Amino acid sequence: MKSLTAFLLFLLFSCCSFSQQTDSLILKKIVNEALLHGESYQNLDYLSNKIGGRLSGSPQAAKAVTYCANLLRSLKPDTVYLQECMVPHWVRGEKEKAKIVGTTSGIHEVKICALGGSVATPAAGIKAEVVEVHNLKELEQLGTKGIAGKIVFFNRRFDPTKLSTFEGYGGAVDQRWAGPSEASRFGAIATVCRSMTPDITDFPHTGSMGYNDSFPKIPCCAISTRDAELLSASLKQDTHLKFWYKQSCKLLPDEKSYNVIAEIRGSEHPEEIITFGGHLDSWDTGDGASDDGTGVVQAIEVIRLFQATGIKPKRTIRAVLFMNEENGTRGGKKYAATAKEKNEHHILALESDRGGFSPRGFSTDMPEEKKAVILHWKNLFLPYGLYDFTETGGGSDIEPLHKLMNVPLMELIPDSQRYFDIHHTPQDTFSRVSKRELELGGAAIAGMVYLVSQYGL
Amino acid sequence: MKSLTAFLLFLLFSCCSFSQQTDSLILKKIVNEALLHGESYQNLDYLSNKIGGRLSGSPQAAKAVTYCANLLRSLKPDTVYLQECMVPHWVRGEKEKAKIVGTTSGIHEVKICALGGSVATPAAGIKAEVVEVHNLKELEQLGTKGIAGKIVFFNRRFDPTKLSTFEGYGGAVDQRWAGPSEASRFGAIATVCRSMTPDITDFPHTGSMGYNDSFPKIPCCAISTRDAELLSASLKQDTHLKFWYKQSCKLLPDEKSYNVIAEIRGSEHPEEIITFGGHLDSWDTGDGASDDGTGVVQAIEVIRLFQATGIKPKRTIRAVLFMNEENGTRGGKKYAATAKEKNEHHILALESDRGGFSPRGFSTDMPEEKKAVILHWKNLFLPYGLYDFTETGGGSDIEPLHKLMNVPLMELIPDSQRYFDIHHTPQDTFSRVSKRELELGGAAIAGMVYLVSQYGL
Repeated sequence: MKSLTAFLLFLLFSCCSFSQQTDSLILKKIVNEALLHGESYQNLDYLSNKIGGRLSGSPQAAKAVTYCANLLRSLKPDTVYLQECMVPHWVRGEKEKAKIVGTTSGIHEVKICALGGSVATPAAGIKAEVVEVHNLKELEQLGTKGIAGKIVFFNRRFDPTKLSTFEGYGGAVDQRWAGPSEASRFGAIATVCRSMTPDITDFPHTGSMGYNDSFPKIPCCAISTRDAELLSASLKQDTHLKFWYKQSCKLLPDEKSYNVIAEIRGSEHPEEIITFGGHLDSWDTGDGASDDGTGVVQAIEVIRLFQATGIKPKRTIRAVLFMNEENGTRGGKKYAATAKEKNEHHILALESDRGGFSPRGFSTDMPEEKKAVILHWKNLFLPYGLYDFTETGGGSDIEPLHKLMNVPLMELIPDSQRYFDIHHTPQDTFSRVSKRELELGGAAIAGMVYLVSQYGL
Repeated sequence: MKSLTAFLLFLLFSCCSFSQQTDSLILKKIVNEALLHGESYQNLDYLSNKIGGRLSGSPQAAKAVTYCANLLRSLKPDTVYLQECMVPHWVRGEKEKAKIVGTTSGIHEVKICALGGSVATPAAGIKAEVVEVHNLKELEQLGTKGIAGKIVFFNRRFDPTKLSTFEGYGGAVDQRWAGPSEASRFGAIATVCRSMTPDITDFPHTGSMGYNDSFPKIPCCAISTRDAELLSASLKQDTHLKFWYKQSCKLLPDEKSYNVIAEIRGSEHPEEIITFGGHLDSWDTGDGASDDGTGVVQAIEVIRLFQATGIKPKRTIRAVLFMNEENGTRGGKKYAATAKEKNEHHILALESDRGGFSPRGFSTDMPEEKKAVILHWKNLFLPYGLYDFTETGGGSDIEPLHKLMNVPLMELIPDSQRYFDIHHTPQDTFSRVSKRELELGGAAIAGMVYLVSQYGL
């Protein structure tokens, strides 16, 4: 009996060890294919340089849908289709202008951009005294008396000491998102928000904000960190200085748009679905190469890698290029609602929306027993520089799947040090992406999708 | 007795755990100082943009010596001094020119640059039929009959599937270093070498080569990988095509130059020395920001970090900015010879010469028992993204210390994916360096230097 147990244990161990060896060879095959014949970099070149910034509802967003659907069709997966969704159509209008108007020290032009979703200023611009705050609580302390009729300047710094820059971002972005309405609550006539970046640079960073319908919608903009420092220093010298800015952005009626979806059906459990992807739309300030062109071309590359290496997934793998992550997440919501309506069985959703930098790991958002399965594969990724599986989280586009259907989530975690140098600025261009880093990220996603497609979760 | 043992064990454990906690706080202090008040990026800006490429013997190399010595003096360590060494003085001369001259298909201009140390071609250039080879062995197989009078074209690819690009480099660079003399052995009149980069790009990559005095010194150059592909494809169509190139580089008499050295003396064991640094010289093609401006400013930053945080090292820490790593390692040799002459006790030498990218770990080259001490600290570095201590090696500048005095070596291992996009090309510029990545690398070196200065090896 003892020897039978030993034999069975030996068998089990041998099988596990054998399958890990096989998986390790398959991962190597995937990575080699990506590094030797990868197409994600040339696809990103097209998406960034021939199509450019792809704000929801724009002609560029429509072009990106067509381009990516055709690319996917050329890879001959089992299905490629478009999933309709209505998206907000916000336009920036003319280039924004802004000045610090000192009571004695003259006029200084500064660099701003409208926050996505903001209303315009009056045609002649808006001008008022400035009250600087560092968090939403300070607004309450100042109250209507301190704020009414003024421009609120949110100037809390993005903490550079957080190693993950996303943690620094998370610690500062409430000013941008909720600041305008919270200031409006106390009678502010406009807001200016310090850009979301840890360093002192010359570019304002746009990004979305949300109005609370209970308060008047006031214009809001982002100011470059260098000019935020200037404004703050100027205010210390000249408390009655005024800030003037002008922007002509507006919200047009919703537009019809699409998620782009491609699927290779599972050979053994086609009903079990693994979704992975990034978002097709981007801000209009740069060409959207890193946010999130890289996630888009990596998802397309995963399909290509399966086809080129001849891997037949046992479970269904589905690349989804989501529309409208930046200012509405309408694509993500539509995708999840449809999945629920069809009663689809999604076993995993995995997003890439942190840039195409060298991959360092994956985050997870799932029950412990499922996470244990993922962690069991950790060593398979170590040879490719992915060692960190500690973060918790998925991504905005797949969050609705979790909310509606409790789908386990993952996100690719690339090195984050450079992301907020370029995020939502004119610096988010193709030239800031490294071919090898991008390819390694795509291969890492393909490897994870392969393992889940093979063994389930 | 048992309880005494238990008590002593408890005490030991508590002390170890306490010291790791203290060390973890000190490392955090170092990293925060670097990320909040780091000066390495601004120093690199000056070194790259105000001084520029710093080939040994050039006026820029001399300026870099003065600039860095002054910078170090401003930090007020215990000593700053220059260590004289004679260096080769090779100059590139006029911009190189090259053409593929087809027998029927016309003339195509291609991009080359002289390899560092090469002799010039005749003033009118050199022109001959081309024989393509992929390794030094093929030369032997072709023999004098196949090679004499021809230009040898070394075209073995830098393997993109190696995850560490330094491994790919190591697998290809023999063609560049030894190729010219090995070809000359069989009567070749010149060589052309495929550039050392995994991708297909438009820039030739220079780099050093070494002549074997037993054979005639023939001109040698590097060709961009795109043009290497073109030349190879053209040769398949037109075996008798000729290659023409012209370069006017030459070797002038040796120049006097310097290593720059700064030291904070140890408070308890001043005789135990920890050397760390990078190299001051660079190739002339770019501004040498990544090779090795980053290593230089990181070494200076380590001194600043100790001073700014008030850490008093128990052992002596010494920043060394080595001269002439690229084409002679004369600075490194001089430093080691002097250390031996003075009978100095070097407990560690640590180099940073792989670019200022996000740090991922350290390599080591030391006996197992010393490596065990380093590995004991591994977890202290994990919060900063350094997880990989598996590589073996030090760096060219500190290698002589190992050879002469058996000094344990380490090297900072940053992410390697982007390095060979820019290595030894006009693309090696300040704009390719990320502030945070650079700062994290400097802080990681400071952390390791702190631990060794505290506990020895």
